[in-house]
Amino acid sequence: MELGIVGLGRMGANIGRRLMRGGHSIAVFDKNSQATAAVAQEGARPAKSLADLVALLKPPRAIWLMLPAGRITEDTIAELGSLLARGDTLIDGGNTFYKDDVRRGAQLFSKGIHYVDVGTSGGIWGLERGYCMMIGGEQDVVTRLDPIFATLAPGAGDIAKTPHREGRDRRVEKGYMHAGPVGAGHFVKMVHNGIEYGLMQAYAEGFDILKHRAADGLPDGERYDLDLADVAEVWRRGSVIGSWLLDLTAMALAEHGDLDSFTGYVEDSGEGRWTVEAAIEEAVPANVLSAALYERFHSRMERSFADRLLSAMRSKFGGHVEGRPPEPGKMP
Amino acid sequence: MELGIVGLGRMGANIGRRLMRGGHSIAVFDKNSQATAAVAQEGARPAKSLADLVALLKPPRAIWLMLPAGRITEDTIAELGSLLARGDTLIDGGNTFYKDDVRRGAQLFSKGIHYVDVGTSGGIWGLERGYCMMIGGEQDVVTRLDPIFATLAPGAGDIAKTPHREGRDRRVEKGYMHAGPVGAGHFVKMVHNGIEYGLMQAYAEGFDILKHRAADGLPDGERYDLDLADVAEVWRRGSVIGSWLLDLTAMALAEHGDLDSFTGYVEDSGEGRWTVEAAIEEAVPANVLSAALYERFHSRMERSFADRLLSAMRSKFGGHVEGRPPEPGKMP
Amino acid sequence: MELGIVGLGRMGANIGRRLMRGGHSIAVFDKNSQATAAVAQEGARPAKSLADLVALLKPPRAIWLMLPAGRITEDTIAELGSLLARGDTLIDGGNTFYKDDVRRGAQLFSKGIHYVDVGTSGGIWGLERGYCMMIGGEQDVVTRLDPIFATLAPGAGDIAKTPHREGRDRRVEKGYMHAGPVGAGHFVKMVHNGIEYGLMQAYAEGFDILKHRAADGLPDGERYDLDLADVAEVWRRGSVIGSWLLDLTAMALAEHGDLDSFTGYVEDSGEGRWTVEAAIEEAVPANVLSAALYERFHSRMERSFADRLLSAMRSKFGGHVEGRPPEPGKMP
Amino acid sequence: MELGIVGLGRMGANIGRRLMRGGHSIAVFDKNSQATAAVAQEGARPAKSLADLVALLKPPRAIWLMLPAGRITEDTIAELGSLLARGDTLIDGGNTFYKDDVRRGAQLFSKGIHYVDVGTSGGIWGLERGYCMMIGGEQDVVTRLDPIFATLAPGAGDIAKTPHREGRDRRVEKGYMHAGPVGAGHFVKMVHNGIEYGLMQAYAEGFDILKHRAADGLPDGERYDLDLADVAEVWRRGSVIGSWLLDLTAMALAEHGDLDSFTGYVEDSGEGRWTVEAAIEEAVPANVLSAALYERFHSRMERSFADRLLSAMRSKFGGHVEGRPPEPGKMP
Repeated sequence: MELGIVGLGRMGANIGRRLMRGGHSIAVFDKNSQATAAVAQEGARPAKSLADLVALLKPPRAIWLMLPAGRITEDTIAELGSLLARGDTLIDGGNTFYKDDVRRGAQLFSKGIHYVDVGTSGGIWGLERGYCMMIGGEQDVVTRLDPIFATLAPGAGDIAKTPHREGRDRRVEKGYMHAGPVGAGHFVKMVHNGIEYGLMQAYAEGFDILKHRAADGLPDGERYDLDLADVAEVWRRGSVIGSWLLDLTAMALAEHGDLDSFTGYVEDSGEGRWTVEAAIEEAVPANVLSAALYERFHSRMERSFADRLLSAMRSKFGGHVEGRPPEPGKMP
Repeated sequence: MELGIVGLGRMGANIGRRLMRGGHSIAVFDKNSQATAAVAQEGARPAKSLADLVALLKPPRAIWLMLPAGRITEDTIAELGSLLARGDTLIDGGNTFYKDDVRRGAQLFSKGIHYVDVGTSGGIWGLERGYCMMIGGEQDVVTRLDPIFATLAPGAGDIAKTPHREGRDRRVEKGYMHAGPVGAGHFVKMVHNGIEYGLMQAYAEGFDILKHRAADGLPDGERYDLDLADVAEVWRRGSVIGSWLLDLTAMALAEHGDLDSFTGYVEDSGEGRWTVEAAIEEAVPANVLSAALYERFHSRMERSFADRLLSAMRSKFGGHVEGRPPEPGKMP
Repeated sequence: MELGIVGLGRMGANIGRRLMRGGHSIAVFDKNSQATAAVAQEGARPAKSLADLVALLKPPRAIWLMLPAGRITEDTIAELGSLLARGDTLIDGGNTFYKDDVRRGAQLFSKGIHYVDVGTSGGIWGLERGYCMMIGGEQDVVTRLDPIFATLAPGAGDIAKTPHREGRDRRVEKGYMHAGPVGAGHFVKMVHNGIEYGLMQAYAEGFDILKHRAADGLPDGERYDLDLADVAEVWRRGSVIGSWLLDLTAMALAEHGDLDSFTGYVEDSGEGRWTVEAAIEEAVPANVLSAALYERFHSRMERSFADRLLSAMRSKFGGHVEGRPPEPGKMP
Repeated sequence: MELGIVGLGRMGANIGRRLMRGGHSIAVFDKNSQATAAVAQEGARPAKSLADLVALLKPPRAIWLMLPAGRITEDTIAELGSLLARGDTLIDGGNTFYKDDVRRGAQLFSKGIHYVDVGTSGGIWGLERGYCMMIGGEQDVVTRLDPIFATLAPGAGDIAKTPHREGRDRRVEKGYMHAGPVGAGHFVKMVHNGIEYGLMQAYAEGFDILKHRAADGLPDGERYDLDLADVAEVWRRGSVIGSWLLDLTAMALAEHGDLDSFTGYVEDSGEGRWTVEAAIEEAVPANVLSAALYERFHSRMERSFADRLLSAMRSKFGGHVEGRPPEPGKMP
């Protein structure tokens, strides 16, 4: 079917490519005209503006936004809201806060424009692996867009079937899910990312413990100089903690050894934060997801005020003057 | 090759079966003579005692212990230490604390008996999937036992190769690893289990947040009654957080719905605790692994003293009298 | 000076009493006419409605609201906004979210009405001890209200002077502080409460560890049946961790022994939640404050979904069937 | 009464001074003869060796060790064990691990020598304020030493009496407590320090949140440039979170402003670690105490391996290249 795409960064361009490979007719727009031209060369119809894009599509139109969450998505939706016609559909495939979906969806609904939020996972691997999609929106609108989702999704592939799924929604086994009304798609994707932070941090702490097992100061016979690339690799094979993130960890360790080329400044997107806020709103304990988020904050700090205050208190009650720390693994 | 096995619980018996399928000659002993008889019926030579088992094997002998960590392993190793001969090898495949390995290994070494510790992951699935093994011990002893490990391991299978592993130990890609000297195998397995706790808790918190999204008291339009079995299933397909634990989660949710049949009393083995203690010994932060462990402690408590003390303080400074809580998801 | 008070719960009534003792002229209103009458009997002028209260006061009026944060405060401020005149001042002494202050303050400012937010700590002890106040608002407005704050505050008392405070704001040493513009008072009070959660949880965990030291299963010679009331008492005297919360803990333990009369369902007000949200907004790690909040959530749950999911995963990978837990302090 | 003191660092020397002021007869020894001479000048009898010290004292002797926990304490106790006579008493006033007390106490007991462990809180303030003491040992031995403890303790002072303590041990209200058998004193002191870490971290996080409220990137009207020295000071006066640690915080902030002179490398003694290990041994959740400990580990790390691994994973799944982070308080 026909789809417009706005935002041709890595994700947006690859979504266009996968759809074209699947036989869909794509019109594209990016503020950066070179990005537009690049995808046009691969077969998409290029648009010079949002208005132009709308003009290129036959009603009822469907336009997929793949933009950074925040101001630019807000503005683009506002502009498209005035360009689109009753019956058209706007799809936000970015990492939008679900409460923004709810608000925007209601505004567009009042104009007869449908809104669908699609949490899209798959990163740079999605073009080949397909995208896992969590979708929020009206039932019939989501159904109408099914050919798009079916093409973008990974499909059932050779992943083992889960028993006891007889009678359940078959789309889910192909890698996309109609999660609920507007906002539900991004809500599920948000929690997905929150979990991702937690999983990553669990591996990171575990490998840190392995790494420091070679430190001086540990008792004789209890120090091990472990080959972490091999550890990651062996865990991929038959262990309980095998995962795609572990596959990537094994790749990184085999390629980069002790990872000295990485800064260790770890950014966070909004979704990890919103997940913790959702937990708080629901009064659900989330120590692991929070700790994973805080570690990212911490990774970007040096000599934090909190730590300096600890030093200051210690100097006041104990006369401790703290300089450089002992090496990790050594008792001070 | 020839191997003795002591301890024929689920793990030990299945290890024996997988070895026999692989053409090895197995002699077995379990205190429970019915367990011994059951594996004997499948082709193993049964022993009536540890001494009998030793007598059934040709030197240099290799005996694999698959017993609960702790007293019984300690006693069995002590007894075998006096039965075995110089050049024989004792393999501890259980979940032993690595510091116990170091101590026992040194004791046996003084008698000329070799000691190998094997951290074994795979659970009830290992018979078919194979076991992921992390091995500690002397190089030549581990090499001599290679046929055993090669049979027990999953093998390379169809798991994607990790790039940049040229020139690295090939055994690792088949699912077993010689991690280092005595103790290193169980150390790596211990951290594996510590990570496992963290991963499990990350999923648990995430699904808890999804579950409570249906709670009363949340704002209109921001409540979603999500199908958690479908969420788990869709995440298996192309998402960043796909894993074997997620596969199991999808199975459990598809089969058991809201999991009301589970008590929620979550046990912990020693390994989660030892991992946190190792982190402390190394001065490595481990908020996620600790929080995952503590959640298990917490799951087994009701009206903890800590919580009652919080109530007591609140009553003292604010005159708060606390009864039943508001429903989760409702602001009090 | 003259002050109106709206909301005569424990806090509001005591504030009125302390002001009357200090020679101020108080007019009061509560929806519950008995509450109004009770304070009137002690010398306050009673009002039958908000309009009546406004009429009782001479311009420029000052009215102190002491209501539960949320809907009722919102509505009362809206109504008073239409009753008060240019130059009047509205003081919110409750536990309002600072972002609500900012919004309400701007709305009132547009009508020429001043808004002051006062974070008020002191609980049921404030009538005698005085109230610690953190104040947000315009400089001259806060200055005009100084007689009120000076009376409510504890005063310098016999608390030891902090060195190096020469030249600093003297009001602070009497127990009140002009923290900044509108919202700053409640922001500081919010963080105060966030810290309070953390402190309480630190004590709670420590006493829980002491309590469980008497548990069966610990090694001989390392079990101690400690008198917790005595521990709390001795720590009040010369130790590093002396505090008012510890004073209260000592009271509770001396009076109630093992605290069996407390449910252990621990409520949380909005402020602990907002503190964590502020930390996230600022990208500041807050593991302790979050963990303290989550413990309160947890205290109100039984057989949480998260825990049941852990059990379900364990049953899937290990065949574990979990029933009742071992007693705390016993290794399973 | 007569007491020997071994170890004349800040704590040991001040304990000697406080005892001499209280009329006790003190003999002292330190490996550093200048330290010995300094205290001798104030009236103590100097010893040139442990043997000399033993010779200076009349049986039944009592010797107080005030040495760093670990090797030196171990060796000194071993040496004194061979010098002392049946009926003598050895007091360990340092920060010894309670399990070492139990072991050493049993060894000495077999020689008829009594062992008393005293957890001593008070830091550099103890000389004037007195020391809070938590004591483990045999009942009659502790009773015999009462004059020493009574002098070292702060005494009842003007600290408010806790209600409902009628009939309870009066020593506790003077600041010392016979907690239980050998080990119990250091166990209680250990948990005291664990709590101390938690309290300090709660304040540190709270002040960090206040500090970052001035950061760019926060919404207009919701940024506050707070005077943290004033905040700490005002909280000392009538608030719920008043404490001695807050008194010290107020001092540090008034004296040092933004604390730039502190490195923020925060050391930890063994006691914070042992507290967490005790919690694990007892299966008691201790998220706050653990997080406080981990923050100290973290403060001493830069570009931790865990963080670099997070960066590496992110680069693998998302192509993220992470450089310098955005400023704290700014959404990335």
